[in-house]
Amino acid sequence: MMKTKKYRYTKDDFKLDEAPTKVKDSADELKKIKKQIKKNVKAIRKAQKMMYARRHFGVLVVFQAMDAAGKDSMIYHIFSGVDPVGFKVANFKQPSSRELRHDYMWRINRELPMRGCIGVFNRSYYEDVLVSRVHPKLILDANLPGIKTMKDVNNHFFESRYEDIRQYENYLNRNGYLIVKFFLHVSKEEQKRRFLARIDTPEKNWKFSAADIRERQYWDDYQKAYEKAINATATKQNPWYVIPADDKWYSRLIVSDILTKKINSLPLAYPEMAPKQEEELQVAKKELLNEDKED
Amino acid sequence: MMKTKKYRYTKDDFKLDEAPTKVKDSADELKKIKKQIKKNVKAIRKAQKMMYARRHFGVLVVFQAMDAAGKDSMIYHIFSGVDPVGFKVANFKQPSSRELRHDYMWRINRELPMRGCIGVFNRSYYEDVLVSRVHPKLILDANLPGIKTMKDVNNHFFESRYEDIRQYENYLNRNGYLIVKFFLHVSKEEQKRRFLARIDTPEKNWKFSAADIRERQYWDDYQKAYEKAINATATKQNPWYVIPADDKWYSRLIVSDILTKKINSLPLAYPEMAPKQEEELQVAKKELLNEDKED
Repeated sequence: MMKTKKYRYTKDDFKLDEAPTKVKDSADELKKIKKQIKKNVKAIRKAQKMMYARRHFGVLVVFQAMDAAGKDSMIYHIFSGVDPVGFKVANFKQPSSRELRHDYMWRINRELPMRGCIGVFNRSYYEDVLVSRVHPKLILDANLPGIKTMKDVNNHFFESRYEDIRQYENYLNRNGYLIVKFFLHVSKEEQKRRFLARIDTPEKNWKFSAADIRERQYWDDYQKAYEKAINATATKQNPWYVIPADDKWYSRLIVSDILTKKINSLPLAYPEMAPKQEEELQVAKKELLNEDKED
Repeated sequence: MMKTKKYRYTKDDFKLDEAPTKVKDSADELKKIKKQIKKNVKAIRKAQKMMYARRHFGVLVVFQAMDAAGKDSMIYHIFSGVDPVGFKVANFKQPSSRELRHDYMWRINRELPMRGCIGVFNRSYYEDVLVSRVHPKLILDANLPGIKTMKDVNNHFFESRYEDIRQYENYLNRNGYLIVKFFLHVSKEEQKRRFLARIDTPEKNWKFSAADIRERQYWDDYQKAYEKAINATATKQNPWYVIPADDKWYSRLIVSDILTKKINSLPLAYPEMAPKQEEELQVAKKELLNEDKED
């Protein structure tokens, strides 16, 4: 497994324009990379089984990224191997009017995985400090007290939200959740290439919407919002991983390496049986075997 | 309306044994008291209407108390007059096995009222630092990582939960929620009287369970747990109100006085119409009136 420390941020020293969007071209060693990913998926599944039996820990994996950075295919390639019984993905799109009438964590909390399971957030509560930061009008739509004009959606407002998020993540840690946050960092040039592919390839057409092009015009604003959000919410306990995402296979390799290490850093084990439980197992075994004799 | 400041606690100077369980016998002025409660209910309904139209604020009313302190009848007498469309009660009993597999706020968050509405919590997340403090085994049942023996369910553990709660309430404040927390403070003697009435009155039998008597044996532990929890979570923004509850009607009067004042301290108003909206209203009016001419 590769060294992944360089992708990890634990405090407010993150500079987005210094983080690479590409470190390697995977084409020449694709076979090796795919093999390692397969190995990682197997290790994650093995850890997941123990998690599920023990029900101590929950794992929350957060993916944030610009459009076409590869979130969906990332989730497919890494988690298609895990046991679906202890796994779920939640996609967070634009909030419904019902969701807007609640606090912004309301819809998030509902989708949290149970302890013992792995949950993936495809976008997350971070949207509330990202897209909302780029389009402050979205905050006005939520009709919050004290927020009357664009002027009210200021630094102070977002600082409070960063604090909410830090506290929320701490709370989850205390209650048995490991949180792994990935920002898939794609270049503007690569996004363009992928958008063009979505337009030119009929079976990819459904992935494209004109809104994507509109959002692309806010590229710089999004980069700034990401930099601020990551700096404000990268902590030792809940670091951000900023993954070069211009090369899809290589990004999957990095993410799967990190996830495998993180999940295996949990003190996982199958539940220990107390002497009395062991005894019960033996009694049950005897009864089962006796059935044959009676038949 | 009476002065209610003496029932309010905003910091860690609360001594339960100095807080009265009875201040007045309402019998001699019951008519006056009922009249004032009626007035308060009307005021709450009026405020609720504006809240509902504006959708800025949500109100969360928390009731905590020992058994037979009068929570249920309190809720009935104060909220039977409000508009049920913008109102809901959530009862928190022993958590289900599904709830236990989540973080302890998971079931709470699901029941939060929408902004614009009043929500009542009949028991609440405070149970997780009250009944759980008296019966630490309940925490072991939740199977949290790091919590293996009774020794792990210590002061430090509960201090973390108090912090969770303070932060959660701050978060809700920031997102438009007013939280009003009541502890209905009943004496051990009065609880006994009410239990006996539940046993002796057939139509009250259903309210009694043998478990209530078992819990009564932990009276002193509960009192300590309440004192600690209130001290740790009474803040200026989210004070605790400790209500003498030996006299039911008088306790309803105090609670309704406090609620009326608190809700009306919100900057409530019907939504203002922008000039353009006013115009639209007038256009709509003209169209409606023209219908008659066409008929």
